[in-house]
Amino acid sequence: MSLQPEQNKKTRYTAALLVIGNEILSGRTQDKNINWVAVKLTERGITMLEVRVVPDVEARIIDSVRALSEAYDYVFTSGGIGPTHDDITAESMAKAFDAPLEKNAEAYEILERHYGKENLTSARLKMGLIPQSATLIPNPVSGAPGFIIRNVHVMAGVPKIMQAMLDHVLATLQGGAVVLSRTVTCDLPESRIAEGLAEIQNRWAEVDIGSYPHFQDGNFGVSLVLRSIHEDQLASATEEVERLVAEVLAARKSG
Amino acid sequence: MSLQPEQNKKTRYTAALLVIGNEILSGRTQDKNINWVAVKLTERGITMLEVRVVPDVEARIIDSVRALSEAYDYVFTSGGIGPTHDDITAESMAKAFDAPLEKNAEAYEILERHYGKENLTSARLKMGLIPQSATLIPNPVSGAPGFIIRNVHVMAGVPKIMQAMLDHVLATLQGGAVVLSRTVTCDLPESRIAEGLAEIQNRWAEVDIGSYPHFQDGNFGVSLVLRSIHEDQLASATEEVERLVAEVLAARKSG
Repeated sequence: MSLQPEQNKKTRYTAALLVIGNEILSGRTQDKNINWVAVKLTERGITMLEVRVVPDVEARIIDSVRALSEAYDYVFTSGGIGPTHDDITAESMAKAFDAPLEKNAEAYEILERHYGKENLTSARLKMGLIPQSATLIPNPVSGAPGFIIRNVHVMAGVPKIMQAMLDHVLATLQGGAVVLSRTVTCDLPESRIAEGLAEIQNRWAEVDIGSYPHFQDGNFGVSLVLRSIHEDQLASATEEVERLVAEVLAARKSG
Repeated sequence: MSLQPEQNKKTRYTAALLVIGNEILSGRTQDKNINWVAVKLTERGITMLEVRVVPDVEARIIDSVRALSEAYDYVFTSGGIGPTHDDITAESMAKAFDAPLEKNAEAYEILERHYGKENLTSARLKMGLIPQSATLIPNPVSGAPGFIIRNVHVMAGVPKIMQAMLDHVLATLQGGAVVLSRTVTCDLPESRIAEGLAEIQNRWAEVDIGSYPHFQDGNFGVSLVLRSIHEDQLASATEEVERLVAEVLAARKSG
């Protein structure tokens, strides 16, 4: 959770995101957090290996967060920490990790400052109930804090708030080597370069090559994305992909 | 999978979506399929209860699809059925459900028609390798079909193709009662209406009330979304929510 001495530094840190909320699953709301978290983690040298979206159902939240917490170095959650009846994330986390949910003095102070003592309704105080031994994540936008329990970082669902909380958390987390990427785009259908691409992938074990086709206005194209923590290998593999694309394009013209 | 006689009709059909692709997890690509599938399933009376995003890693695809296939009536997958080395969905499905991957005669015919016999490279023919006993899902955009194995509907990742495949599949699936929804929006912070809202939720077990705060240009607001398969109960609960909001707004003005 905290910065480790350099000698303990791993090459790769893994993470998962758990999005909690009926509104994403019903289609009412278009998720904006998955991509944001993905980009920020990648920049920070943390590899996101899974995302789950689950409804506001206690058992589903508990099962998912336990499984993800076990499998990855870091877990991030978004959603369900507000004052309404459908905000059950804090309680679910308490149950998932056998930590009693309790009035957190620091969180109560924050809520008091934010709303004023006379306006602390029970709904608002609910946002100060935090699992025992959790650390708070400040919320510069709307007061009510997130929290960290074990390797799980519990954040708000509202994108602006989630983003502020994530920035705060990422500044404290250990990341690994940053994955660099290069993209080669061309208007070939991917089946034309598939075999050559597989050969290049076979030659470069430390470079991950992805082929992402797109289809727009009746035309096919493909983005070939190369990713690696090794800059020199990435550059060499990218040259090979560029050469492959040039050859296939030339063959198409002359064919 | 096919339409059942009316007497067998369940009230609720559940589903999960498995998004397969490194590009979503690295943040390179913003997912466009989750919300699309969510909206279409909701319209069709199918309740999406989970989404997972996993990388192009065989073991992760196999574990996830088995778990989801077990837990929900229908599973939909997107991504990884193209011709390149990183397209491993068909092979993973074959392993997940112990069905040998084999040349599918119908798929081969489709590929032959689409590309022309002389252009059937091994990369293109790879898209005709389908788990035994699977049913094909037509691809009106780019030829290469999706397929159905058990309760799993394997679709392309490119949104235009995924959408066409989903339309085809949904026309054949049994759905339950369609969930109707009503939304009440106001510029109150949700903590002001949280207690009243919980009371309304307690009175209406068959109406699911969600509170979705937003934050824009320094102002808080909230969308209160009521969902139910019972139109009359939905209307009555919505009236109660509207009354609550009006009362809190009036109290704020006079306060």
